[in-house]
Amino acid sequence: MGGDRAPAEIVAGAVDAVSAGLDVVLVGDESRLGPLVAESGVEIPVVHAPSVIDMHEDPAQAIRSKRDASITVAARLVADGEAQGLVSAGSTGAVLAAAAFVIGRIRGVARPAIGSVYPTGQIVLDSGANLECRPEHLVQFGAMGAALASVYLDLESPRVGLLNIGEEPGKGRELEKEAFTLLDKSPLHFIGNVEGRDLGKHTVDVVVTDGFTGNVLLKGAEGTASMLVSMISSLLAERPDLADAVADLAPTFTELRERIDPETYGGAHLVGSRGVVVVAHGSSSRIAIANALAMAAEGADRGLVGAVTKEIEAIP
Amino acid sequence: MGGDRAPAEIVAGAVDAVSAGLDVVLVGDESRLGPLVAESGVEIPVVHAPSVIDMHEDPAQAIRSKRDASITVAARLVADGEAQGLVSAGSTGAVLAAAAFVIGRIRGVARPAIGSVYPTGQIVLDSGANLECRPEHLVQFGAMGAALASVYLDLESPRVGLLNIGEEPGKGRELEKEAFTLLDKSPLHFIGNVEGRDLGKHTVDVVVTDGFTGNVLLKGAEGTASMLVSMISSLLAERPDLADAVADLAPTFTELRERIDPETYGGAHLVGSRGVVVVAHGSSSRIAIANALAMAAEGADRGLVGAVTKEIEAIP
Repeated sequence: MGGDRAPAEIVAGAVDAVSAGLDVVLVGDESRLGPLVAESGVEIPVVHAPSVIDMHEDPAQAIRSKRDASITVAARLVADGEAQGLVSAGSTGAVLAAAAFVIGRIRGVARPAIGSVYPTGQIVLDSGANLECRPEHLVQFGAMGAALASVYLDLESPRVGLLNIGEEPGKGRELEKEAFTLLDKSPLHFIGNVEGRDLGKHTVDVVVTDGFTGNVLLKGAEGTASMLVSMISSLLAERPDLADAVADLAPTFTELRERIDPETYGGAHLVGSRGVVVVAHGSSSRIAIANALAMAAEGADRGLVGAVTKEIEAIP
Repeated sequence: MGGDRAPAEIVAGAVDAVSAGLDVVLVGDESRLGPLVAESGVEIPVVHAPSVIDMHEDPAQAIRSKRDASITVAARLVADGEAQGLVSAGSTGAVLAAAAFVIGRIRGVARPAIGSVYPTGQIVLDSGANLECRPEHLVQFGAMGAALASVYLDLESPRVGLLNIGEEPGKGRELEKEAFTLLDKSPLHFIGNVEGRDLGKHTVDVVVTDGFTGNVLLKGAEGTASMLVSMISSLLAERPDLADAVADLAPTFTELRERIDPETYGGAHLVGSRGVVVVAHGSSSRIAIANALAMAAEGADRGLVGAVTKEIEAIP
């Protein structure tokens, strides 16, 4: 029931995921979901949850008081082992609260974090769950990001970098200075400070930062990418004589657009939770939802929660 | 004498600027600068300054103890009214210290800030001078950014936005929540929260944030832009059959690369100083230096310091 385009696009994404072989359970108002599922001709079980938590409610309070909200009921399915993962395009605050209060944190995790994938494949975390962090949180983000990278990128020893404003040790705020020291002493494969411009160079696999900075970095990258795409379009529009060349290259540009489209990733893992939780964009289309469901299934299949537990236990 | 490519590229940039009609004074080791100037065949006065402050020194201490360093001597020329602006590609910390201790701040300015230009023309500040800020600093950044936008973009009432992780009021850290309230009450044309993805959309002219976040945003944009350019190149390299189309479009791509190249901007204004100060990239080439000199001259010609003073006085 969450997201700007719910429930139609969410159900459509679930239909695509089921057609691709996943087991999906929809949670929400049966009177609205039922007809959409029936129309699709695909069989998807619906667990009824009559209420919703909207963007304007206090998430922690709403999770506690609305026990029949769709996000609460869905989280309970995961907590009870009836589902192996949760995907939501609803209020991120509500998803975080449901993960914290209903599913619970992995032992030793101070702050679950959102690990988003940058278009060139690196994992950036936290990208929005914890706006203000302490140095020890960043070390845990490094460990959880390494787990995510080992599960998704099949890396044995993912390179962890600390997002900073310069490469030299000693750069940054107090937060980065102290986190640098702790990361350097940790068992992680810590490569030191990295800058925003290193992301495209594939010199790092996991980029650690607080949730405010990570969110700004990722949305800035998104903005820059669409700015460039529209700059290219308008430059080419000025040259009608090149129309044939542009037509020849159209498939290349389409491929480029798909590669950088946030919908391709579908969502981002909330790591540190005692269950697989994928946070999808509020504006998610059916494609994004299907991809987010595949992401959650992959996390469950490959043992993401176990990998995170192991990495967190290795931090002194 | 500052920057990775000093002094040769710096002198070359000065030569270009002088050829374009600017009055330039070079400050540094005469025995090194003199021959380079002589070789160029262009007449440029050199003010001798035998020592330099390097990246590894404590800037504030170095500025106080090395009274004959090139940056100190150059700042003194501005403080004494013998030069109307200062450009340096040296240590940003040393430039900030020279501006603070030798040139001084405009009355009422708590923290001078670096205002960088995003490729689509918006001004982002602070982009690196003040890593940890209080809400009232962000309001002053808004005022100084508005002055910069009025001088450079010829805008009567520049739209000021607060960089945040969502558009709704109440989003962000304590810093953003309090700054939002103060900006909203200020005489600035405050349009509310903006996100990284708004930058390409031309919906805002001045983006206010702390220096850590601003630096990450801008370097991330730079990284994304070069990532995209290399993605395009490698996609096209896979299609030798399209070589003719690629050749036809080459000038368009060159123009695109120039538009997004940080060298085009040359540098960024340090606003709030009682003189025009332009901070150039450490890796500045002659093109970047010539552009930074033009930027400083423009700031002096158009009365940037006066404009900042006026905007700061208007803040209650």
